[in-house]
Amino acid sequence: MTLIVQKFGGSSVADAESIKRVARRVVETRRAGKDVVVAVSAMGDTTDELLDLAGEVTPLPAPRELDMLLSSGERISMALLAMAIKSMGHEARSFTGSQAGMITDATHGSARIVDVTPVRLREALDEGAIVIVAGFQGFNRDTRDITTLGRGGSDTTAVALAAALGAEQCEIYTDVDGVFTSDPRVVPKARKLDRVTSEEMLELAASGAKVLHIRAVEYARRHGVTLHVRSSFTDTEGTIVYDPSRLPEGEAVEDSVLAGVAIDLSQAKITVVGVPDVPGVAAKIFKILAKSNINIDMIVQNVSAAATGLTDISFTLPKTDGEKALAALSGVQADIGFDSLQYDDEIGKLSLVGAAMRSASGVSAKLFEALYEAGINLEMISTSEIRISVVTRAESVHRAARAVHAAFELDGEEDAVVYAGTGR
Amino acid sequence: MTLIVQKFGGSSVADAESIKRVARRVVETRRAGKDVVVAVSAMGDTTDELLDLAGEVTPLPAPRELDMLLSSGERISMALLAMAIKSMGHEARSFTGSQAGMITDATHGSARIVDVTPVRLREALDEGAIVIVAGFQGFNRDTRDITTLGRGGSDTTAVALAAALGAEQCEIYTDVDGVFTSDPRVVPKARKLDRVTSEEMLELAASGAKVLHIRAVEYARRHGVTLHVRSSFTDTEGTIVYDPSRLPEGEAVEDSVLAGVAIDLSQAKITVVGVPDVPGVAAKIFKILAKSNINIDMIVQNVSAAATGLTDISFTLPKTDGEKALAALSGVQADIGFDSLQYDDEIGKLSLVGAAMRSASGVSAKLFEALYEAGINLEMISTSEIRISVVTRAESVHRAARAVHAAFELDGEEDAVVYAGTGR
Repeated sequence: MTLIVQKFGGSSVADAESIKRVARRVVETRRAGKDVVVAVSAMGDTTDELLDLAGEVTPLPAPRELDMLLSSGERISMALLAMAIKSMGHEARSFTGSQAGMITDATHGSARIVDVTPVRLREALDEGAIVIVAGFQGFNRDTRDITTLGRGGSDTTAVALAAALGAEQCEIYTDVDGVFTSDPRVVPKARKLDRVTSEEMLELAASGAKVLHIRAVEYARRHGVTLHVRSSFTDTEGTIVYDPSRLPEGEAVEDSVLAGVAIDLSQAKITVVGVPDVPGVAAKIFKILAKSNINIDMIVQNVSAAATGLTDISFTLPKTDGEKALAALSGVQADIGFDSLQYDDEIGKLSLVGAAMRSASGVSAKLFEALYEAGINLEMISTSEIRISVVTRAESVHRAARAVHAAFELDGEEDAVVYAGTGR
Repeated sequence: MTLIVQKFGGSSVADAESIKRVARRVVETRRAGKDVVVAVSAMGDTTDELLDLAGEVTPLPAPRELDMLLSSGERISMALLAMAIKSMGHEARSFTGSQAGMITDATHGSARIVDVTPVRLREALDEGAIVIVAGFQGFNRDTRDITTLGRGGSDTTAVALAAALGAEQCEIYTDVDGVFTSDPRVVPKARKLDRVTSEEMLELAASGAKVLHIRAVEYARRHGVTLHVRSSFTDTEGTIVYDPSRLPEGEAVEDSVLAGVAIDLSQAKITVVGVPDVPGVAAKIFKILAKSNINIDMIVQNVSAAATGLTDISFTLPKTDGEKALAALSGVQADIGFDSLQYDDEIGKLSLVGAAMRSASGVSAKLFEALYEAGINLEMISTSEIRISVVTRAESVHRAARAVHAAFELDGEEDAVVYAGTGR
């Protein structure tokens, strides 16, 4: 029997009614003749409520105990879902992360999966049960302690289970219809993609598309898991995220042009002004930032002014790391010998993503022309093999996205339906 | 280093402030030079809220999943308590029932502890940590599933840990000052007992005293664990529950007279009227009740009327089992051949308990005289080696308790302090 892994997030299991709705969907899949393994998040705002409780007890909760605390969230949702399914006449069994064999490293709060040993899940499946697994949590073998996987953790749980159990597909249920060519709230003519390669999905996720967490996409790509991103509120087919190199010989790869336009307003720009243009200085700057665990995205170094021998270095980073980065750099100002720091959190990033970029020439030229015609000024540019990203003023980035979306003929016939409150 | 086990119930850890107060008390014990193991219940009404959630999903939740659900409650309180203690500068580690080695049978909802293998707790203690254990929950080795111990479960967890770890004492923190000679809300002159034997405590618990659950007292008695029942709101010494046979040679056993007067308004009386007085009929009646899992307490059979060859059999049982018992008996009326059933839920039971009863004669006579003088009519009487119980009208039982309490000179000098809302 083929196996499907289904993942339901917190908003899909927010209350008893939602849990019953999810149960009906799981049972439908089972009745269609599939083995089903379900990965489930904590109900609605449970995780935030538990974090608030911890905050009331101590401002700096011990990470081991915080994981113990948070892991109770999925225990509640998974037990309720198993009960709901059983009450519909199907055998169902819930398993915690450790019972499911979700082995992680010992990094509390953002553990990485190192092995999956789903012995008990296989037994339960062999006995005809529908299996429910707590998302987001795992277990470290050395410390024998409970861990949690951090942001996007339940998606990663689902993908890891799909890989370990050799699932046909991993369905990620969410509150939108699938992966779109752009954010429909910004670009009304955005279209749902029927298919997207895992490489493109990775670039889209890294560029600000929020529908899938980058860690889950990476895991799926590395292990050849086909994802199906779809809505838990409708029966419409969603978006298939696949690895074209794993397609069976002879199966035509879709003639994909461009996957989409992602925008990201969560970044800020720091400019280090008046840096001596001598070897090793840039290395010093980024070493000190790396030591503070700051994720740098784009970097631009100006051409040095010959007269002074000084240059400026600009880079982008998450706004949430802004203060930390400024403090770290200020601390080494004398050592590095720069003039000043400029901080700008009014920037927007637009990224055009598509595997077709590899073969099709002229994509950058067309992009810059579209932005020029829309009167949008570019502050930084960076490219990867299948992505071009530009930084603009924050207030221009939505207009820029619509212009680029139209120029590359990504626009659909009709405006996309935007669900109320679709935060992701 | 000597070891103390401390148990805190749901009302002692109802919110962040209470958890911090408990943390301070645990740390004080640690600073006094003791190793400390803490057993903790779920916060406040958590268990009831989880039961309500399950009820919204299905009227008959699967027992395995219900245990998985309910066990999340102590996970929350124990993690928060460990965080609170750590934030006070002491090493603390929380453990679930299965991590603590609390091995039970497979009876979901009311599992019995069959073994305790506290390997990880000993390791943590050896490393100098304060150990926090989830009360109420365990783990079955064969099914590898989570179980819960049912009512009074956290008390039992604490006692089992004390036995397995060879603790000096098991402190049960509650919202009253200790074990009283009677319920202070009924008998204002009730006194706190400084000491009571485990045998007496067992009879008191079985007779309606709610301060300790009977299963925990039984476990303590069987394993020779000394209990200390005390208030989590004051520093006053509470009541020591001890086994006199385990006292060191030569240590004087207190000249205890009577331990107390317990009352119980939770029972009802069923009278089977017109039962043929032939051998085997009573056995049939109680066999059918046993098959329905109904706990019978007192039984009285009238002298048979010679003319008819018929007799009446009365027994008491928990009111909550009343309907079930009537249905079971009605089903066999033709087979047994009785006339009718009478149901009376307006009864009260009063029990006088004390090990001194064994040697002192005249206790029953004095009891009956006190009740006669107070004008109270007795409907049923039963006795054990260290207890006399009588059934009266429900509305008379409080007055009866005060009369007996005074007659046996149990009254204290002053009225006992009654805390607001002391349900137990």
